[in-house]
Amino acid sequence: MNRNDHDSLGTIEVPDEAYWGASTARALRNFPISDLTIGQHRHLIVALAMVKLAASRANARLGKLDPVIAEAIAKAANEIIEGGLHDQFPVDVIQGGAGTSTNMNMNEVLANRASELLGGARGDYRVHPNDHLNMSQSTNDTYPTAVRLAVLLGKDALSQRLDQLATSFERKSGEFANIVKLGRTEMQDAVPMTLGQEFGAFASTIREDIQRLDEVAKLLTEINLGGTAIGTRINADPAYGPFAIESLSRISGIEFTQSSNLLEASWDMGGFIMFSAVLKRIATKLSKIAHDLRLLSSGPRGGFGEISLPALQPGSSIMPGKVNPVIPEMISIVCFQVIGHDLAITMAAEAGQLQLNAFEPLIAHNTLNSMKLIRNSVEVFATLCVDGIQANEANCMKHLEASTATVTALVPFIGYERASALAKMALASGRTIRDLAGEAMPGADLDTILDAKSLVGEVLRSQGALP
Amino acid sequence: MNRNDHDSLGTIEVPDEAYWGASTARALRNFPISDLTIGQHRHLIVALAMVKLAASRANARLGKLDPVIAEAIAKAANEIIEGGLHDQFPVDVIQGGAGTSTNMNMNEVLANRASELLGGARGDYRVHPNDHLNMSQSTNDTYPTAVRLAVLLGKDALSQRLDQLATSFERKSGEFANIVKLGRTEMQDAVPMTLGQEFGAFASTIREDIQRLDEVAKLLTEINLGGTAIGTRINADPAYGPFAIESLSRISGIEFTQSSNLLEASWDMGGFIMFSAVLKRIATKLSKIAHDLRLLSSGPRGGFGEISLPALQPGSSIMPGKVNPVIPEMISIVCFQVIGHDLAITMAAEAGQLQLNAFEPLIAHNTLNSMKLIRNSVEVFATLCVDGIQANEANCMKHLEASTATVTALVPFIGYERASALAKMALASGRTIRDLAGEAMPGADLDTILDAKSLVGEVLRSQGALP
Amino acid sequence: MNRNDHDSLGTIEVPDEAYWGASTARALRNFPISDLTIGQHRHLIVALAMVKLAASRANARLGKLDPVIAEAIAKAANEIIEGGLHDQFPVDVIQGGAGTSTNMNMNEVLANRASELLGGARGDYRVHPNDHLNMSQSTNDTYPTAVRLAVLLGKDALSQRLDQLATSFERKSGEFANIVKLGRTEMQDAVPMTLGQEFGAFASTIREDIQRLDEVAKLLTEINLGGTAIGTRINADPAYGPFAIESLSRISGIEFTQSSNLLEASWDMGGFIMFSAVLKRIATKLSKIAHDLRLLSSGPRGGFGEISLPALQPGSSIMPGKVNPVIPEMISIVCFQVIGHDLAITMAAEAGQLQLNAFEPLIAHNTLNSMKLIRNSVEVFATLCVDGIQANEANCMKHLEASTATVTALVPFIGYERASALAKMALASGRTIRDLAGEAMPGADLDTILDAKSLVGEVLRSQGALP
Amino acid sequence: MNRNDHDSLGTIEVPDEAYWGASTARALRNFPISDLTIGQHRHLIVALAMVKLAASRANARLGKLDPVIAEAIAKAANEIIEGGLHDQFPVDVIQGGAGTSTNMNMNEVLANRASELLGGARGDYRVHPNDHLNMSQSTNDTYPTAVRLAVLLGKDALSQRLDQLATSFERKSGEFANIVKLGRTEMQDAVPMTLGQEFGAFASTIREDIQRLDEVAKLLTEINLGGTAIGTRINADPAYGPFAIESLSRISGIEFTQSSNLLEASWDMGGFIMFSAVLKRIATKLSKIAHDLRLLSSGPRGGFGEISLPALQPGSSIMPGKVNPVIPEMISIVCFQVIGHDLAITMAAEAGQLQLNAFEPLIAHNTLNSMKLIRNSVEVFATLCVDGIQANEANCMKHLEASTATVTALVPFIGYERASALAKMALASGRTIRDLAGEAMPGADLDTILDAKSLVGEVLRSQGALP
Repeated sequence: MNRNDHDSLGTIEVPDEAYWGASTARALRNFPISDLTIGQHRHLIVALAMVKLAASRANARLGKLDPVIAEAIAKAANEIIEGGLHDQFPVDVIQGGAGTSTNMNMNEVLANRASELLGGARGDYRVHPNDHLNMSQSTNDTYPTAVRLAVLLGKDALSQRLDQLATSFERKSGEFANIVKLGRTEMQDAVPMTLGQEFGAFASTIREDIQRLDEVAKLLTEINLGGTAIGTRINADPAYGPFAIESLSRISGIEFTQSSNLLEASWDMGGFIMFSAVLKRIATKLSKIAHDLRLLSSGPRGGFGEISLPALQPGSSIMPGKVNPVIPEMISIVCFQVIGHDLAITMAAEAGQLQLNAFEPLIAHNTLNSMKLIRNSVEVFATLCVDGIQANEANCMKHLEASTATVTALVPFIGYERASALAKMALASGRTIRDLAGEAMPGADLDTILDAKSLVGEVLRSQGALP
Repeated sequence: MNRNDHDSLGTIEVPDEAYWGASTARALRNFPISDLTIGQHRHLIVALAMVKLAASRANARLGKLDPVIAEAIAKAANEIIEGGLHDQFPVDVIQGGAGTSTNMNMNEVLANRASELLGGARGDYRVHPNDHLNMSQSTNDTYPTAVRLAVLLGKDALSQRLDQLATSFERKSGEFANIVKLGRTEMQDAVPMTLGQEFGAFASTIREDIQRLDEVAKLLTEINLGGTAIGTRINADPAYGPFAIESLSRISGIEFTQSSNLLEASWDMGGFIMFSAVLKRIATKLSKIAHDLRLLSSGPRGGFGEISLPALQPGSSIMPGKVNPVIPEMISIVCFQVIGHDLAITMAAEAGQLQLNAFEPLIAHNTLNSMKLIRNSVEVFATLCVDGIQANEANCMKHLEASTATVTALVPFIGYERASALAKMALASGRTIRDLAGEAMPGADLDTILDAKSLVGEVLRSQGALP
Repeated sequence: MNRNDHDSLGTIEVPDEAYWGASTARALRNFPISDLTIGQHRHLIVALAMVKLAASRANARLGKLDPVIAEAIAKAANEIIEGGLHDQFPVDVIQGGAGTSTNMNMNEVLANRASELLGGARGDYRVHPNDHLNMSQSTNDTYPTAVRLAVLLGKDALSQRLDQLATSFERKSGEFANIVKLGRTEMQDAVPMTLGQEFGAFASTIREDIQRLDEVAKLLTEINLGGTAIGTRINADPAYGPFAIESLSRISGIEFTQSSNLLEASWDMGGFIMFSAVLKRIATKLSKIAHDLRLLSSGPRGGFGEISLPALQPGSSIMPGKVNPVIPEMISIVCFQVIGHDLAITMAAEAGQLQLNAFEPLIAHNTLNSMKLIRNSVEVFATLCVDGIQANEANCMKHLEASTATVTALVPFIGYERASALAKMALASGRTIRDLAGEAMPGADLDTILDAKSLVGEVLRSQGALP
Repeated sequence: MNRNDHDSLGTIEVPDEAYWGASTARALRNFPISDLTIGQHRHLIVALAMVKLAASRANARLGKLDPVIAEAIAKAANEIIEGGLHDQFPVDVIQGGAGTSTNMNMNEVLANRASELLGGARGDYRVHPNDHLNMSQSTNDTYPTAVRLAVLLGKDALSQRLDQLATSFERKSGEFANIVKLGRTEMQDAVPMTLGQEFGAFASTIREDIQRLDEVAKLLTEINLGGTAIGTRINADPAYGPFAIESLSRISGIEFTQSSNLLEASWDMGGFIMFSAVLKRIATKLSKIAHDLRLLSSGPRGGFGEISLPALQPGSSIMPGKVNPVIPEMISIVCFQVIGHDLAITMAAEAGQLQLNAFEPLIAHNTLNSMKLIRNSVEVFATLCVDGIQANEANCMKHLEASTATVTALVPFIGYERASALAKMALASGRTIRDLAGEAMPGADLDTILDAKSLVGEVLRSQGALP
């Protein structure tokens, strides 16, 4: 069932049906670590196939690659780009070698598939994994390019989910526009606001993150394709790089440019640090929102109880009727994981030595994994949680009225110190601010000064919720 | 092909063949996040089955659980403990709910399997997932107990791999005991040592880590089983906890004790922080060693070149004949990942609120995952890399002789300042320390004073390598 | 006002009045980074003076050091141990060189002070900074030893503050032993408990941390003194190490032992990783407690409001009468900082290369700094915050009674599913569990079954709070 | 020597000579944590004074603030902006209260100084710390604004130092433009390059970071001034915010805009996450460069030895003549510290709750501290280290010639597999690639194909170093 395949280290057995070959076989033996294969990172596989296709076209255009072979490579690459053969990438995501095993896995699959398309058997290598598939290339320029492209390929789906979540919050913001409630700072009663404002802020913050994502994504469109081994372009025609990048832009629909310093671009992980930083930023925002939702829905009787989250599963195996904020909890868990990934990425970036960063496979895995976790969790967050949130208007009003939140509005009239004394009196006596203000400010138009709706009105008005 | 199952939230469809039920179905809908199932954490599944078995025995002993049902539960649990039904745990490792979905997945599988053993169909619930399988229990005590047990079940395999690696280094230490070389501090030539000493230090440091692992593992044998919902033992007989823990100790072969403060034990994640800290510590040690091996094997011509690592795969897709330190690189990558996991664990531990830590599923996943990554990578490290390392004795000697490493031995005779002047003169002129010392210390027994073997002899002697 | 001092690199000016010399002057020029001097780490200065004293005694005992010089060194070292001359250590805490600048700063101060005691002027060096003060020593064994000793010197004060805090919580636990309240998991109403139990758990968790601190402190009593440059004991008599360690144990009152592998001990930072991990663990516990206190004191009207924290400062510059939980907030801030320090320590430990870790000064600074932050903040936490906490018993009872917390107690009687239905009915209708249970369980002794005090009684009883 | 001062909590003593008052006194008692005062963050003090000045001008323009008082405030604020009274800010950088203590410290100093300018005594409060200095303001908008401004005020100095470092590297790049050497990937000999290219890449990467710094700085010019307590503009005239921001832009010379969602802007820390991410990115780049310099200068005899760093201090207290890479080590230490700070910032950002982030003081301190560490260390790096680096051309050539680095250039002619075999033969036999290629490729123009200068020529040419 096995055939012999070989590489520069000698012969090794591979399964007959495998499109991959000797290098991949060695990688499987060397890295049996995580049970996660690079094939699970769909965008990475597609991206690398696109890079190989672009390289092959550039080589053909320069007359260096036989058009027949180039055509076979193109057909094979397009199969992968369209989703085929993804089960042929069994190399572990945790791997040494700076991506060489990933690059060679792709080279071997394409070589065998292209050979097959030209009438050969697997292992025949009418199309050679190194001489043809790696022509004018090195792992050191194709892999960093493919990882960047993979991230970019996944970015839009991520942005769309975030946009969906922002829209969910905006819808709730509109729905809750007239529910006045107590604003809180440092967990203490502060001043009036609306529940709509609270949810509107969630929407705003996520929309900003989508912009940040777009900004840092641009950093990843600068690539070192054509630099080959260390950026000196050894073994590549001067025209190859520009041709390959032009081709890759066309294939992927993303406008790439060549780094101005190819030496630096060969080892620089700075773009990934920024991209992961935005993922981390998104995570902290989502977790903050999740915290707030847990707080606001705490209770139902012994907590804030200002909103109710949808009941999605029995909350307890022992406490009947309990319903827990499981989606917001899952969101925080994703946040912690993403922050952990960011640290791993940072350490990998820092540890690079000399002309290459050998730890880029970890950066690739953690970035793509964080994107997936956020994407999936945000979709659930929007549809199963946020969309079903209900306001408990009575509780909102009860807290506001019981508090001294409106006393701040008296400061312009009676000064900070007298207002403080009045607030303390209210808390100690149980009397209302309105009541005490009546005594302290005889004749004042307290209906206007203390009206909660007007105290939050400025912003409401600016948002078009009030005339 | 689906049957209707129900829980306190109502009815939901589950596949006919599934042993799991409504709660699991809801979890699948709520947490489609990572594609990693709890079933992949083999020890966690076994541990939770053990906990259920122990609880069932304690309930039976107290006369609260029908012996027939207890027997059926025992049979079902033992099937899982022996490796069966692990494909019945599809819940995502990333989950909200503080482990409730994991606990209920187990309760449902055991309930259906036990019902089946008693002649019922799946979904019949002759044995009930809550009333029988969760009797005297809460997720809040069974899950934290099971996670601790899962870690302990995996600990020995981890220690064994570390021991194997230490042994590999020790073997090399013996093999290289007489190869004298240059010791380096701050990347600069320092004083003589042996290559055997260098590898012996690697073995020592790993052996220490195995001890640390044993020490922190003890912290995890303190469990809150019997505390139920929040540690007040609500719904559990006072005798239940001790009975269940006694039973769990017998089943697992690990001596457990009940936490002295069950309230605290319900939310405290301190033991996991320490366990993960040791994993992090191991990771930093392994990565330091991996760095050193990369340095010592750098070259082969333009680097330190004092050792050669086995050639495991072609090192480059473009540079022929290149062989890279792919295993040490993979070790560093695992290290960075483990440190990232530790951070996620830390954040989850810090974020716990009130009577429970809702984020324990992340702690469980990351701890078990880190253990797996270290275990697998260390085995590869020992067998594919360390065992095959060869010394390049000539290079070791060449560096030592070219350096001024022996000048330190002159300090007791001519003082630090004169020795410094002599070292500078040696570097500037290209003359040897021996030569210059002959002029500076006429009549001194330089053969003895500067003999490299004697300069490292103390330690060699204490290790039995020299008479 | 300056004198010329010199070292092996040549002459450099130092202020006339300085006890430090050329090496320190170079360090001041090389490291003008943080404005934080090593002199601010009091325990580090004392520890290093103790190491120098111990080394000097061991050298004298071996007949290698002139007794007159040894005596002068002893006097000078004791002055520093007793708190003198601490302003003579201006080197920045952020420094390259693996601690050499710190070691030489101490060597120079002691050399000049000892020379002075022997009748010489500063700069005379009748006692030489290298030949006498560094005899049989290297930075590489004295500095790691001193840092470990510094941490151990500071440990007791830290433990005492933690003990003080635990005692404060215990006192409150007793004070609140009979205040029954709602326990919460995942921010949702759960089952009854007492406020005393809640505070008792805080005390328990801190007491455990004190034990952990003691355990990891033991790891730091294993030192490499006597190993000199890289652990091969070059330039040290075989008897020197044991003599010096015996002397250091006597001077410091801490029992030290020599590492079994001095090579490994020269670069190993594992003990610091564990010590910092415990500091991190303490930080997460403190922050969790601080979170809980902020939650429980939220309001005063629109939150949980179950406790009141002392009013320590006006809470707002705009909102009159607002009082914020500023001490718990500061505690969380300290926690985040300590976790940040732990990461820096981890990275420094991982980055060590070959025979020495060059980044130990960062480990020293961050460990000592974290200890200081925790020590100071915990003292404030206990005295200004915890000691003054007051329970709002009425609110505790109100939340409990409004909730369905007692429904769990019905599960053993009517099963989980019926109890769930009953809880939902209670929440929807506003009727009490007691009321509905009366209908569902006619004739049952609900007074006993649902009595909140008895539901939390087990633990109360075991703590001696109930008969 | 003390006077009585008071705030809404009552009376408290403050030193007669202090410009600060009761709130500051309370903060000193509440936060005796780190011994670091906010006054040490010069830019924060200046920034907050600018904010107060802008607010005062806006209030005066609206006719709400007496022009005489506004004038006195302006004079006092300008004194601080110009560097005066910075010793009047003793509050600890570690503080609870979301910046209230910092805001009130400033309010009190300005109130007392302005009162004094109007002929009053300290404590008279002719100008009131709340009613006048905090008019139309809250800590919650002035403090976040001031922290952003403080970072922006410090940014240019940071960029300038980075630019200086980049220039130093560029100068060296030119100086070393014709020194051909061995490029290395994964610590293994790779292909030829020039030392000038290596240093040029360092310059490039730093220049990119300066751009990133500019980009993220823009995020901080969006401020919430005018939002007051929680962003609803309570107590502020609708025109106040725009007026104050216009004024602040004029005073600071930085163009600020008001956040489009003031509610979100009150709690959002996203801009700081990005700014810190760039600082972290800079740190990883600097540390990578520092690693490389340590590697390239390793030896002098037993390492790479391709460059020599300036000798800045004796490298060892025991090993005469040793010179260590102390500045690159310090750079890595700063890197680890900055990454630790970034984590603390991340955690603080994540932990914010509801309408405010209470942990912003930690974010402020860590951001400003990281900026300072990088700024100071980079200046030293450029002037004391990089500017003095010397190339060891002979070593560069020796490594290149000993290696098989040129074999890659044969791949286009003889294919990857034959080239591999040839490389192995060279390593095994000690023969050169040139020699073996002569046999394998008879008649080929090896002078051209294997010429090292031409192998790196592409890039050299593009940099203008070759014709």
